[in-house]
Amino acid sequence: MQTTICALATGAGGAVALVRTSGPDVLRILNAVTRRQNWEPRKQIFCTIYDGETVLDKALVTYFQNPHSFTGEDVAEFAVHASPYIKGRLLELLCAAGAVPAKRGEFSQRAFLNGKMDLIEAQGLCDLIASGNKAAHRLAMSSLDGKLSARLSDMRLKITELLAQIEVRLDDVDEEMTPLSDEFVRGEITSVLTHIKALADTFSVGRLIKDGLRVAIVGAPNGGKSSLLNALVGFDRAIVADACGTTRDTVEETLEINGQKIILTDTAGIRDHSLDPAEREGMRRSVRAMESADLILLVLDTSRPLTDEERALWADIEKLGKRTLIVENKTDLPRAGYTLENAQNYQTLAVSCKTGEGLEALKKAVTQDADEAHTADGLMISNLRHYESLLRAQTELESALLRLTAQAGGEIYAEHLRGALLHLKDLIGEVTPDDVLGVIFSKFCMGK
Amino acid sequence: MQTTICALATGAGGAVALVRTSGPDVLRILNAVTRRQNWEPRKQIFCTIYDGETVLDKALVTYFQNPHSFTGEDVAEFAVHASPYIKGRLLELLCAAGAVPAKRGEFSQRAFLNGKMDLIEAQGLCDLIASGNKAAHRLAMSSLDGKLSARLSDMRLKITELLAQIEVRLDDVDEEMTPLSDEFVRGEITSVLTHIKALADTFSVGRLIKDGLRVAIVGAPNGGKSSLLNALVGFDRAIVADACGTTRDTVEETLEINGQKIILTDTAGIRDHSLDPAEREGMRRSVRAMESADLILLVLDTSRPLTDEERALWADIEKLGKRTLIVENKTDLPRAGYTLENAQNYQTLAVSCKTGEGLEALKKAVTQDADEAHTADGLMISNLRHYESLLRAQTELESALLRLTAQAGGEIYAEHLRGALLHLKDLIGEVTPDDVLGVIFSKFCMGK
Repeated sequence: MQTTICALATGAGGAVALVRTSGPDVLRILNAVTRRQNWEPRKQIFCTIYDGETVLDKALVTYFQNPHSFTGEDVAEFAVHASPYIKGRLLELLCAAGAVPAKRGEFSQRAFLNGKMDLIEAQGLCDLIASGNKAAHRLAMSSLDGKLSARLSDMRLKITELLAQIEVRLDDVDEEMTPLSDEFVRGEITSVLTHIKALADTFSVGRLIKDGLRVAIVGAPNGGKSSLLNALVGFDRAIVADACGTTRDTVEETLEINGQKIILTDTAGIRDHSLDPAEREGMRRSVRAMESADLILLVLDTSRPLTDEERALWADIEKLGKRTLIVENKTDLPRAGYTLENAQNYQTLAVSCKTGEGLEALKKAVTQDADEAHTADGLMISNLRHYESLLRAQTELESALLRLTAQAGGEIYAEHLRGALLHLKDLIGEVTPDDVLGVIFSKFCMGK
Repeated sequence: MQTTICALATGAGGAVALVRTSGPDVLRILNAVTRRQNWEPRKQIFCTIYDGETVLDKALVTYFQNPHSFTGEDVAEFAVHASPYIKGRLLELLCAAGAVPAKRGEFSQRAFLNGKMDLIEAQGLCDLIASGNKAAHRLAMSSLDGKLSARLSDMRLKITELLAQIEVRLDDVDEEMTPLSDEFVRGEITSVLTHIKALADTFSVGRLIKDGLRVAIVGAPNGGKSSLLNALVGFDRAIVADACGTTRDTVEETLEINGQKIILTDTAGIRDHSLDPAEREGMRRSVRAMESADLILLVLDTSRPLTDEERALWADIEKLGKRTLIVENKTDLPRAGYTLENAQNYQTLAVSCKTGEGLEALKKAVTQDADEAHTADGLMISNLRHYESLLRAQTELESALLRLTAQAGGEIYAEHLRGALLHLKDLIGEVTPDDVLGVIFSKFCMGK
């Protein structure tokens, strides 16, 4: 027997709160708390919610008849006054009438199980609710609106059809059918493989858009690191998402640049490698910050020659091989000139935190990857599970190609195609085991 | 020209957010963001919200046609996904289409101005949303459901009718009508006065229910003050509203006892008056806590004789003349016996924080006033403005009675009746000036 679940769908505070219930007993529970029998689906009815003989609230209540609801089940929504007492008591009354408190993501899980959305769309919904900026919103929306699902379905269909053609010939013991040419099979597999690789490649940027781009600002003390951080944060202060947090090692500041979430890390002052332990600790912090960063901003004070410590830092940066921007600071002062080995391989930007000159160009360079992704067809993955499934499907298809080249029998590479198909189905949620589904939806928010 | 206002009506976080707009341009704005023309009132429509050429969200949108809405104007409600980006952007889009951000309480103010509710009901609505416990909820509901308004209307009607009878005789220069007997006029005024006094008297308890009963726990160090606080808080820990806050002077803990909000103050240790400055400071704190308290709990350790400091504290308590409960603690230990002058005038309760014995009886005694108020007809005021208007009306009626006794002319006491009437009308909001209305509604929450 399916239970009827209930939960608060809105956040803390506010004037209005939405309490939602879904399941087979919704109508009975609705009648119990409102003493009203007739419900026209989707119509907001202003009615009394009773708590025994007293009135709990007068509220707009809507009934959604299955299957025309978010979950595909009968659903009722109560838009009550957002009093802490009313919200809590209404949930108690619903439970007393037979509902049970919903688990995190349980409404979405039911929508998925009832075929209202696939797993990609459900994940998009979860990401949409979490989206705090334009880029993350756009990313989530492209999962939610089914475009990504459609692309994956296309690939799945192509493999399914190829597999059918192969399998019918494997069964054709009398060899009455024309064999498939290796060229044809290779062409089909390669075509799907290209799409899968392209999609898997978007993960590196998609992840950054969803979780934020980690930027480490490094440089010598008094080189202008903190003033650069302040200049970047200051200009976008109004849309800073999280408050400034001080970690044991570094100062982190979350901000939005060009609609993209950026997590700036300001490292402790860096001095010579060989100084006392406290100074070496500063260096270690910079290296750690750079190791966990997606982008490094090396801030150089161009009004004085490079120091040994800056050269040491540069050596570390080259070793890491990460995307790095060289930021020439204090361009308002006379240039002393400097040379860095291989600096020509990196983008160099001149800024003056004092005058603000060059800051816009720097911001553009910082968000370049995310901005470029937006000008493409917009399909992008940002979920590690999706990425892993695509990689597994890719591996199977590559193995199939290898077997084909090695002139292995159809049965051998068909097995790899079946493997690839399974990973794509898992991605969409078609063959995903219940316990895995439970884990996925438990990361959703309450009331959704 | 009336503006069209918009605001977020739900709180931070959650899965769903409600954005609400009200005013003459609602339909045009609705069409602009959804590109949909036909709206059946009160029906939740699942539709796309456009941000230029991109999709901002797919959401349930409802249109309410004037006058059948909360404000009495055209209203639209958008139940969008509660992403920080979507909420902010939708408000931007609504404003771009011609709406303006609503001020605090502006939806309620419009409902009031359009005759959807009087000022008493509007205040009830505001209190309802703030209600965090059963008693405050019940108090707000009795304002919101119109019972209080009805009682006030009855009084107003009685004065209006009496005034009409007096005035028609004042105009009757030929003295053709039978004069009103003083007995009749006195009877009518006294009847209304009784009701007004009774209602004004409920303010002392109503205020406590709404804002919480401030309880000061005082006593000698090691007398069991803190263990009593812990015992009281511990039993209700699950429903503690605010976190424990440490003020400079005292520790405050907000909890709920028998559905009533209680603010417990634990005072610093009290010792002899004449000791060093730090000790005298402790005493001063206790006195301050008692001065701002609604109820004093004097905790005595009955396993040892009273100390001089406890006697000094008792003297202070007697001077204050506040409602005080004597709590005999450590009843699990043998009694040493004690005498306090005039203790028989106060309620004494024996508890053992160790065994929990007597705690229930103590809780009942603490919330006694609020509980008794609930067994009456439930009409109660908790708003200072309402209290002051009632007091002013009461003063006018008392003056009218005095003039009547002094055989002043009808014109004289009619003027006092007109004054009383004006105060009652102000209470309901009938004659309240716009600037006063503005102040009242500015204390409401956003989106309501």
